Amino acid sequence: MSVYALQKLFRDVNRKPAGWAGLLVAATVYAAPCLGQSSTVSDPDEARIEDIITASRILANEGILDSFGHVSARSAKRPDRFFMPRAMPPALVSRADIVEVGLDCKPVAPDAPRLNGERYIHCEIYKARSDVHSVIHTHDLAVIPFGVAGISLKPVVAQAGFLPLETPLFEIREANRSEKTRGMLVINAHLGEALARKLGANPVVLMRGHGNAVVGSSVRQATVRTIYTHINAQAQNAALALSPKITPLDEAELETNATENFDADRPWQNYKQRLPAGR
Amino acid sequence: MSVYALQKLFRDVNRKPAGWAGLLVAATVYAAPCLGQSSTVSDPDEARIEDIITASRILANEGILDSFGHVSARSAKRPDRFFMPRAMPPALVSRADIVEVGLDCKPVAPDAPRLNGERYIHCEIYKARSDVHSVIHTHDLAVIPFGVAGISLKPVVAQAGFLPLETPLFEIREANRSEKTRGMLVINAHLGEALARKLGANPVVLMRGHGNAVVGSSVRQATVRTIYTHINAQAQNAALALSPKITPLDEAELETNATENFDADRPWQNYKQRLPAGR
Amino acid sequence: MSVYALQKLFRDVNRKPAGWAGLLVAATVYAAPCLGQSSTVSDPDEARIEDIITASRILANEGILDSFGHVSARSAKRPDRFFMPRAMPPALVSRADIVEVGLDCKPVAPDAPRLNGERYIHCEIYKARSDVHSVIHTHDLAVIPFGVAGISLKPVVAQAGFLPLETPLFEIREANRSEKTRGMLVINAHLGEALARKLGANPVVLMRGHGNAVVGSSVRQATVRTIYTHINAQAQNAALALSPKITPLDEAELETNATENFDADRPWQNYKQRLPAGR
Amino acid sequence: MSVYALQKLFRDVNRKPAGWAGLLVAATVYAAPCLGQSSTVSDPDEARIEDIITASRILANEGILDSFGHVSARSAKRPDRFFMPRAMPPALVSRADIVEVGLDCKPVAPDAPRLNGERYIHCEIYKARSDVHSVIHTHDLAVIPFGVAGISLKPVVAQAGFLPLETPLFEIREANRSEKTRGMLVINAHLGEALARKLGANPVVLMRGHGNAVVGSSVRQATVRTIYTHINAQAQNAALALSPKITPLDEAELETNATENFDADRPWQNYKQRLPAGR
Repeated sequence: MSVYALQKLFRDVNRKPAGWAGLLVAATVYAAPCLGQSSTVSDPDEARIEDIITASRILANEGILDSFGHVSARSAKRPDRFFMPRAMPPALVSRADIVEVGLDCKPVAPDAPRLNGERYIHCEIYKARSDVHSVIHTHDLAVIPFGVAGISLKPVVAQAGFLPLETPLFEIREANRSEKTRGMLVINAHLGEALARKLGANPVVLMRGHGNAVVGSSVRQATVRTIYTHINAQAQNAALALSPKITPLDEAELETNATENFDADRPWQNYKQRLPAGR
Repeated sequence: MSVYALQKLFRDVNRKPAGWAGLLVAATVYAAPCLGQSSTVSDPDEARIEDIITASRILANEGILDSFGHVSARSAKRPDRFFMPRAMPPALVSRADIVEVGLDCKPVAPDAPRLNGERYIHCEIYKARSDVHSVIHTHDLAVIPFGVAGISLKPVVAQAGFLPLETPLFEIREANRSEKTRGMLVINAHLGEALARKLGANPVVLMRGHGNAVVGSSVRQATVRTIYTHINAQAQNAALALSPKITPLDEAELETNATENFDADRPWQNYKQRLPAGR
Repeated sequence: MSVYALQKLFRDVNRKPAGWAGLLVAATVYAAPCLGQSSTVSDPDEARIEDIITASRILANEGILDSFGHVSARSAKRPDRFFMPRAMPPALVSRADIVEVGLDCKPVAPDAPRLNGERYIHCEIYKARSDVHSVIHTHDLAVIPFGVAGISLKPVVAQAGFLPLETPLFEIREANRSEKTRGMLVINAHLGEALARKLGANPVVLMRGHGNAVVGSSVRQATVRTIYTHINAQAQNAALALSPKITPLDEAELETNATENFDADRPWQNYKQRLPAGR
Repeated sequence: MSVYALQKLFRDVNRKPAGWAGLLVAATVYAAPCLGQSSTVSDPDEARIEDIITASRILANEGILDSFGHVSARSAKRPDRFFMPRAMPPALVSRADIVEVGLDCKPVAPDAPRLNGERYIHCEIYKARSDVHSVIHTHDLAVIPFGVAGISLKPVVAQAGFLPLETPLFEIREANRSEKTRGMLVINAHLGEALARKLGANPVVLMRGHGNAVVGSSVRQATVRTIYTHINAQAQNAALALSPKITPLDEAELETNATENFDADRPWQNYKQRLPAGR
């Protein structure tokens, strides 16, 4: 066990609600020979909730989530339910803020705190995609310019090989049914369904003037995809400033064809260790 | 009360002039079930002053206020007066630096410390706009390019839906009366009045080669508007680098038409928790 | 004396070579009613040396000085000499690293440590400009693109009103006398003299593919000018990305005509408080 | 010995596996009159391994290495072997993670942990270039746009004078032998050899949509070259945004012709002191 792992252990113990009580369990984990160990939590839903909290802090720390985005995870025990934080800044989310929500977008508990108005992004994607176990909605400033300028986001860096050749763009004006009530936010089932339809079988859908929604088979995969969508957008933006003619990845270079699989756990550990100790 | 709230409590106690003496009061506040609680201060003017100090540090911490900008708040008790810091860097402002100023732009106390030369931005806007309870003047590097290049700032992200379809630009050359004395700074009532006229009923006015002035019904609203004006400018700038043809929000998408109101308290809490502990 | 001043005091005491021994003196200073107090050091040259150290750390902290730039100050007692750090990274400079140098560019002490090869920038400017008491050489990444692209740096923000309508650019190819020995660095008196000639009576000269040299009547003024040259370059760069037609300050708007003088001490205090505690 | 050196000493002692046990040795080193002292480690391979760890942290801290890049060093004792970290985020590398690898790209120890799939970048360059003692592979976001846009990276800043007039670009599509198995990663000897061939006698080769590989006669030289390739890419990118016609260094201005040699140790010390204490 390295000095680093030890320092990290103490930091984590101080940070986690469990406090010093969780020391023995945590020590066991950190002593594992591999960084990619799974959570210490035996309940699969608690493990997913722990990852929601870590993902929220990671994405806030990397400047991808602002005061409004949200990370959710489908329940492992009840696939017709999912977990997401109440309406609050993602950087501040802790265990007590997590709410269990049905696919009808209503909280399971009658006395649940106020939920995000845009929870319909999550419900409708979980309904449409049984393969999806995590949904992330961001206002990522790196991807917004693509939707506003009507330029396709394309995979240009190797690690964004999970993206399709063109990432779909959701134009909420096409989905809004009434001129009178239309706006920018996905605040009802009709709009959520239209967004899920635009997402289709893809991992990411851009939202014009708003951000994106990213999905994955786990919170960690969705988180790492969110980060590499961000990095890819920065790279494509800078490349287009140099020349209008760029070379994106082609069909054969996409991750789906890779002989060596993309390791989602490595970036997860990397971004986790970048979290400031006090937050 | 989460571990985070507790850490924050201790940090705040160490930071505030009241020190450990204010612990019990503060504890009560942090134990409140909702992050959006109002200030612990019962005097409404002291609450506004506390928000001036927090807003100054938040906007400096986010890189929007430099060494010269200023945040002010109208007095709740005497609407013909307002509070603003003496001439000093906003990041360093504390309670003792706040000066009460009349709408004639003179300090109320005869022995007041030196005020900012540009306080006329504040006096004249408070005179012209009875709905305004807070004024913020920044040298925001994200908005300056728009004035220098003569390009209209437009709302392109959902959270900047408080902006009008085109944000007015103040060209001080048009307001300066004499070739001999003209300059870039708003250092008299005539120039302040011209700026207030250009602002009109809008929430923001850009100042060419200088920055902007942002107003709100509270310090928190003005602060959050200042931040989203900054974010929107970055997004529009990046979108225009991709294509000269962009899609801003249209009339129906502006906040004034939103069915779900923009929650100013959530970003306030988010940016507040980002303040470094030692500052 | 605010909590902030107190925290700063302790930080400074821990940081300074004098340590706790200097506490009483320092306390007196921080208790002064105004942030703009002059140094605690009574020897004028020691005060200038202290400012060289602070300026080096400030400019490294703001990302303007990299591993190679340098800050110097003319001696107050012997105007034919100046002080500059030995060859080392500016962020690490302390009192023991400061060397006294003659205008012939030779160290006064026979056993002086190795000096920067580019000290000729300093000697030749001090020789040519008796009004200059501080010279700063940077590799500022914000100004380099202007020289490389052959685009004039112009004042576009109010606080850069000390700049002339066009900042001169030094092309070292024109000054190098021999094809055989020519290079990018100002490493002899001939090149230093050519640079000083290009600077002329201006506050700043750009160096193609290299950076700039900034001068002032004090270390603080030269430091603040270096920072606002940096900020102005960023603003002009971003404005030119929006439109090739920009509006710089005009003759009447330059600082030389301002009725309210630019306050160099306020940014100095602001950037000083941004220094991390441990550095 | 300055206060800074002392603080650094304590930091290092706390950080290093050797802990307080190494104090006396370390003290001797830091008391040396010059920052450029060599390592405290007498074993030359241990000294190189220590530099791999420091370089990994420096390049992660400067935002150049992400979760996947790697730094390696040839063995001083057995030039047919080299050292590199196992498959893990570079920011977290410590002594226990370093693996000894043969030029056949197989670990020397039979029970070695999993290696990076792209270790062939290193093996093949060490085979082809006996002068190379360190190889660094990055996903540097500053250089990626050049490959994606097909624009040549050229030396535009003085400190990047080690670059050739045009840095070669590796297009993996040209090297992949089969349409069926081709991808973006250098995961076999054939692709590594093709990359080494494109590198030729140069210090840097760009990899389209991927990053670069940088070599040096030491870990420190390769690290400083990696950083100045990054800085140069930023400068060239910004210059090209101002004008399509830029002035790069010419033949005579390259480092190979410099009368004053580039000092690799100064930036190494500078970037080392920027490492956060806790990492």
